[in-house]
Amino acid sequence: MTVKTIQVAKSALSANQEIAEQNRAMLDRAGVTAVNLMASPGAGKTSLIERTVRELKGELRIGMINSDTSDAAMDAERGERAGAFSIHLNTTGRCHLDAGMIRDAIACMPLEEIDVLFIENIGNLVCPASWKLGTHSSVLIASTPEGDDKPYKYPRMYSGVDALVVNKIDLLPYTNFDLNYFTRGVEALNPGLSTFPLSCRSGEGLTRWLHWILSMSVREYIYGRAEQMV
Amino acid sequence: MTVKTIQVAKSALSANQEIAEQNRAMLDRAGVTAVNLMASPGAGKTSLIERTVRELKGELRIGMINSDTSDAAMDAERGERAGAFSIHLNTTGRCHLDAGMIRDAIACMPLEEIDVLFIENIGNLVCPASWKLGTHSSVLIASTPEGDDKPYKYPRMYSGVDALVVNKIDLLPYTNFDLNYFTRGVEALNPGLSTFPLSCRSGEGLTRWLHWILSMSVREYIYGRAEQMV
Repeated sequence: MTVKTIQVAKSALSANQEIAEQNRAMLDRAGVTAVNLMASPGAGKTSLIERTVRELKGELRIGMINSDTSDAAMDAERGERAGAFSIHLNTTGRCHLDAGMIRDAIACMPLEEIDVLFIENIGNLVCPASWKLGTHSSVLIASTPEGDDKPYKYPRMYSGVDALVVNKIDLLPYTNFDLNYFTRGVEALNPGLSTFPLSCRSGEGLTRWLHWILSMSVREYIYGRAEQMV
Repeated sequence: MTVKTIQVAKSALSANQEIAEQNRAMLDRAGVTAVNLMASPGAGKTSLIERTVRELKGELRIGMINSDTSDAAMDAERGERAGAFSIHLNTTGRCHLDAGMIRDAIACMPLEEIDVLFIENIGNLVCPASWKLGTHSSVLIASTPEGDDKPYKYPRMYSGVDALVVNKIDLLPYTNFDLNYFTRGVEALNPGLSTFPLSCRSGEGLTRWLHWILSMSVREYIYGRAEQMV
């Protein structure tokens, strides 16, 4: 009698990784640079996309997948009004995006008409950090009223991203946010991280961010895709 | 031959419910009123506890369980400096508290020396909503710079709480937070919800909140514990 062998189901995370790789291949074939945008609720994910779309109109064709835990599609509508091709993704209560949701969303998008695709994750500094989507870059948006201690308290999120936007710098005079303390925390976790202090509201500091988005998109076309999938 | 019956394991949530009931019974026996404080990262959970402890010194003996996804214990230390009996709970990356974690934490606390226990959940507007801890009340802290659209986007969290603090009203002049729009969203989900607009920084609006905490604690002693566990 031989021992029966049963195939253990793949873990959810490794199955997700496989789909993320398929997403990445599909985006690469279509020439789309995708960015996974993560942040606390209200840090300014939609505002940053909206502002970026308006500023780069005529230079970049931007797509947006906007996720929410509910059917509230107002953020996707904001992106659409600004000029992005927008899709609203309702996670029906789930606390993060995964690669399967993104596979379904990009199947509905005219990828050949898009240069840069912003994927707005669920507002959450914990869960999205574990789930790769197949994007080329992941960006965290912090905001000054959230406080300068967040790198120390959400180290996994801060250490896993490729760029950091520090939004709402127009509120700095009215908060006790200490940029030096914040930066020391970030540097300890993610040395040399590209950081963009700005205000989506006033427009201050936006130019450097726009150049970064443009250069990332151009670099991807000229030198081929970066190897690391995020 | 009889068909074998196997006992299906209880779901994680129903097992959690059982432990939450045990926590509640233990808190009741000790005469402790417990509050589950939930919010986005940086909305002001620790600041509210800190301020409440300082203002009610001599009137209420306050305990604090402060959770973080990391070993950063600075918030628990803030509570301790203010005069609370404080415990830091490291969830090691997990995105919400559960009743088992609280059972372990209250086992380390001198419950007979505490009147009100604040349990500071992980900064997250999604996951903590599903997990009962055994507290007598659950309170959500919103903050004005987060934006006025949060009730529409995180309806589960807003509909499940017993009170709402709207923190950082000192920043109202510098944001585009529309209190009417926000309140309409809250009312649709949770009609008549006790709401406390205040600023932990300036102290504006704090008195009503302190009276609520005092009255809840006193009511619990006089009329017995509220029936619904949250």
